[in-house]
Amino acid sequence: MGEPAGIGGDITLKAWRRRREGLPPFVLLDDPDRLRTLAARLGVRVPVVAVEGPEEALRHFAEALPVIPIALAAPSSPGVLNPANGPAVIAAIEAAVRLVQAGRVGAVVTNPIHKRCLHEAGFAFPGHTEFLAALAGGVIRPVMMLACPELRVVPVTIHLSLRRAVETLTTAAIVETATIAAQALKSDFGIPRPRLAVAGLNPHAGEGGAMGEEDIEIVAPAVGALKQAGIEAVGPLAPDTMFHPKARARYDAAICMYHDQALIPLKTIDFERGVNVTLGLPFVRSSPDHGTALDLAGSGRANEASLMAALHLAAEMAARRAAARAA
Amino acid sequence: MGEPAGIGGDITLKAWRRRREGLPPFVLLDDPDRLRTLAARLGVRVPVVAVEGPEEALRHFAEALPVIPIALAAPSSPGVLNPANGPAVIAAIEAAVRLVQAGRVGAVVTNPIHKRCLHEAGFAFPGHTEFLAALAGGVIRPVMMLACPELRVVPVTIHLSLRRAVETLTTAAIVETATIAAQALKSDFGIPRPRLAVAGLNPHAGEGGAMGEEDIEIVAPAVGALKQAGIEAVGPLAPDTMFHPKARARYDAAICMYHDQALIPLKTIDFERGVNVTLGLPFVRSSPDHGTALDLAGSGRANEASLMAALHLAAEMAARRAAARAA
Repeated sequence: MGEPAGIGGDITLKAWRRRREGLPPFVLLDDPDRLRTLAARLGVRVPVVAVEGPEEALRHFAEALPVIPIALAAPSSPGVLNPANGPAVIAAIEAAVRLVQAGRVGAVVTNPIHKRCLHEAGFAFPGHTEFLAALAGGVIRPVMMLACPELRVVPVTIHLSLRRAVETLTTAAIVETATIAAQALKSDFGIPRPRLAVAGLNPHAGEGGAMGEEDIEIVAPAVGALKQAGIEAVGPLAPDTMFHPKARARYDAAICMYHDQALIPLKTIDFERGVNVTLGLPFVRSSPDHGTALDLAGSGRANEASLMAALHLAAEMAARRAAARAA
Repeated sequence: MGEPAGIGGDITLKAWRRRREGLPPFVLLDDPDRLRTLAARLGVRVPVVAVEGPEEALRHFAEALPVIPIALAAPSSPGVLNPANGPAVIAAIEAAVRLVQAGRVGAVVTNPIHKRCLHEAGFAFPGHTEFLAALAGGVIRPVMMLACPELRVVPVTIHLSLRRAVETLTTAAIVETATIAAQALKSDFGIPRPRLAVAGLNPHAGEGGAMGEEDIEIVAPAVGALKQAGIEAVGPLAPDTMFHPKARARYDAAICMYHDQALIPLKTIDFERGVNVTLGLPFVRSSPDHGTALDLAGSGRANEASLMAALHLAAEMAARRAAARAA
């Protein structure tokens, strides 16, 4: 479901209408009534069918959008946040995790949540990812990957100010993040020997210390440790020259030191089809790489491309992980 | 000339051979003998003619590469730095500035220099740009713009570590940089009402202070001051969502807070044709957006695209500036 005042419903209805474009079947955890109202508002014909579980959903998917009902506490209007519906948003995530843990679905795809609204409803986690890690057992260090067909990026520090990102970057965090990324590229992306490109922190990767010591003191030792562990890693690379097409052909994922070093190239290259993937969880989880877009909710103008890419990628990852387990 | 051990000679010879692709005529300040030797090594037929000045150069340009001789102190080999040739590198820059100041050429285009080698030769400036500002009178604050057909970016802080960039960013520097950029877009780029997009410093432009206070305390006041001064500016914008094609259509230049925020999108979009332009000088100056590439010098593999783009852009800017002065 995600935030019911956001575009989650809009893009899910639009994605289901394009199900014949090879979209993997999915079951929605949401309020069937609000979806029917939304479909009418958008003027799209989407039969909504309430189901008890994924097995029943699969039988209906070709003809109707299957929904496992999660009741909202209050009627939801597009664009209007209501913390009273926070518990339903959380219940949908919990129910999805129970289904994937029970092996009844292959992956979890989450629509965007509105953090501030959930926090007002008493939600104690910084975001989706941390909540999923807790549901998965809590000892996990989740790692965020953003992926589009042309590029995969994995930021080591994420939602920090640039100042805090510089201050908190450590060799250990780079090694841990890159190791989880390499493992996931093998198990979930079908790449037997993943090649990692590790970005420098500073312009020109510090140019031998002329522009900052961090690349020498923090990043280079991490690359050394990764190589020592048998992971194919190069770096620290000059951040500005590692994202053009020829450079991208040399690696399977870029390990980035801060949010915008990862997100600027990804969203510049492919703004609409970026997918957010959480690595390091015991189950596959993806989400569209955008927010709730409250101003677009109910307008018909929300773009379903990222959700569709998230569904495709989740299905591929789940299939590869299942195959790797069977082998 | 630039650094004679680098690719400056290679790309200039290759560019001259493509002069019929509408390249503006130019005169090279270099050592004719080393160019003849280099042409022979590369196996390219480029007649080199020594000339006394630009007027004579213009008469020869269609048939030969015109060169105003600057004698090297020692023979130069591709890839082998020799500080003894530093004075010749500096003399070439000085001679170019004298020509443009005298109105005998329209613009200065500089091939890459090797800073460390020049510093060993006693050169006291951090780089090209500061030296040119000194030659232009010294009271000037030069501003760097990187331009390709799809994007123009102007970094406020440049060759600093990321930590220092965060620490030294000020409202005054943003306002001054953006004001010089807006003026140059009018006089040199033919844009009567330039639209500036001002990037935030932090992820999501700080998200209301949740990820850093700088966007509220430093960047937003700069945008306010620019608007107050009648400059069309928006921001602080979330850095990751301002460089995709639809976003780029909304502005003429992006004012960026640090080197890689500007350079990552530019080099991701167009790695080969980026041009470095110095704004705020009393004359037009551009340069290819790459270094000396010592390892490629003399190999024939250096790419002349950026130098050609720099020559084209310099000619366009010079023509617009001349027209603006005449009007």
